[in-house]
Amino acid sequence: MKNIDNPSEKIIIALDGMDKDDVVNLLKKIPEIVWVKVGLELFVSEGPDVLSMLREKGKKIFLDLKFHDIPTTVARACFAASQTGAEFISLHTCAGMKALKMANEAAKEGAAKVNLIPPKLLGITILTSWTRESFCNDLLINQSINQRVKHLAEIASNSGLGGCVCSPKEVQFLRESYPETFELITPGIRSLGSNINDQSRVSDASEAIKMGASKLVIGRAITQSNDSAYMFKSFCDKISI
Amino acid sequence: MKNIDNPSEKIIIALDGMDKDDVVNLLKKIPEIVWVKVGLELFVSEGPDVLSMLREKGKKIFLDLKFHDIPTTVARACFAASQTGAEFISLHTCAGMKALKMANEAAKEGAAKVNLIPPKLLGITILTSWTRESFCNDLLINQSINQRVKHLAEIASNSGLGGCVCSPKEVQFLRESYPETFELITPGIRSLGSNINDQSRVSDASEAIKMGASKLVIGRAITQSNDSAYMFKSFCDKISI
Repeated sequence: MKNIDNPSEKIIIALDGMDKDDVVNLLKKIPEIVWVKVGLELFVSEGPDVLSMLREKGKKIFLDLKFHDIPTTVARACFAASQTGAEFISLHTCAGMKALKMANEAAKEGAAKVNLIPPKLLGITILTSWTRESFCNDLLINQSINQRVKHLAEIASNSGLGGCVCSPKEVQFLRESYPETFELITPGIRSLGSNINDQSRVSDASEAIKMGASKLVIGRAITQSNDSAYMFKSFCDKISI
Repeated sequence: MKNIDNPSEKIIIALDGMDKDDVVNLLKKIPEIVWVKVGLELFVSEGPDVLSMLREKGKKIFLDLKFHDIPTTVARACFAASQTGAEFISLHTCAGMKALKMANEAAKEGAAKVNLIPPKLLGITILTSWTRESFCNDLLINQSINQRVKHLAEIASNSGLGGCVCSPKEVQFLRESYPETFELITPGIRSLGSNINDQSRVSDASEAIKMGASKLVIGRAITQSNDSAYMFKSFCDKISI
């Protein structure tokens, strides 16, 4: 496995369970953070202002609102989101190909209108909280998660998206089908033996990178540890080996 | 069919394709509007400030961001959203029962913390843009839309949600299963012969109300007509008969 020269580029810090002040304090504690993920909770409370604040601090942003609406609305939401300067924007592949294609075009247009480099759209495949059983019971979908992730990744790729979000359990077989330029972003990263909260399909950091993940989304394992700076550094060390 | 005393209570204006100024102008033109729907596009651009503006104008708000994430994130997003004063908040039933139950509790807690009446959470069933064919081709789900809507509505009801969003094509059979207190909110409302854009499963206003819809979501048919005030009034007249 090739040596990773800048491991902090490989780690996206999920700003979950935090308000704006918590975020400012975290970034002071860990100035080495390059990537941050803004999810529904923080965005619903703070709105686009939190994105401007993060950009002013020179952070790269994954806007992870997981859009899932009719094609026109998903496209317009991606047009608006592309103008915030976020580098990654997520939307559900189960919104369907028409929505994904329209969204991809709209994101390019939106970014171009404000002279920004277009964001990469990332297709959400199967949320890491699902297991085969819960998926089948709740949603009556009788396909294995691997099969379904493979199909949804195909929809994302065929629609021109820049990559996918998948659990560490699927990153290896996806990487065999897609080139390095197709981002595979994996949440569900835990240190061995740590609390997995409501994630089901998890693995450890170096494993996920070895299997082909482009970047890892890590949240509570760092943000809620007693020494976040130390934890960030130890994750960086782990993935550089 | 019982006479409808206040038809404007039955119409939710979708503020799609509009910025904040357009919204202010529309509300000036049609002061009789009671309900408005804030979707992804407007919220991604403006954030929670647009909700405060609408509340100051005395409007009732359907915050329609269609949350679809892991249970913890959906719950925290609903906690945050419930503190904006929105009366309705949407989330995808396909986020699963665990997410819906946690979200329902979180919305009550969030509202209570700021002394607001808890919002009603509305479960998105199948987006009105889907047809049986596109649903099967893109998502490999070989169930009829009616069957699937019935199942997803059951998940919503069993999780304690306040209602569902469904197309006019499903409102009649759902109303047979659920009491009047279970909201059935239907987008996809068109005047006969008008452009259906990317909605597939549509019907006309008075039909939908007769079949048991609690409220109708109407957007472009009013907001993009040459005389929005006249169109709003004519929809109100139509559903009062």
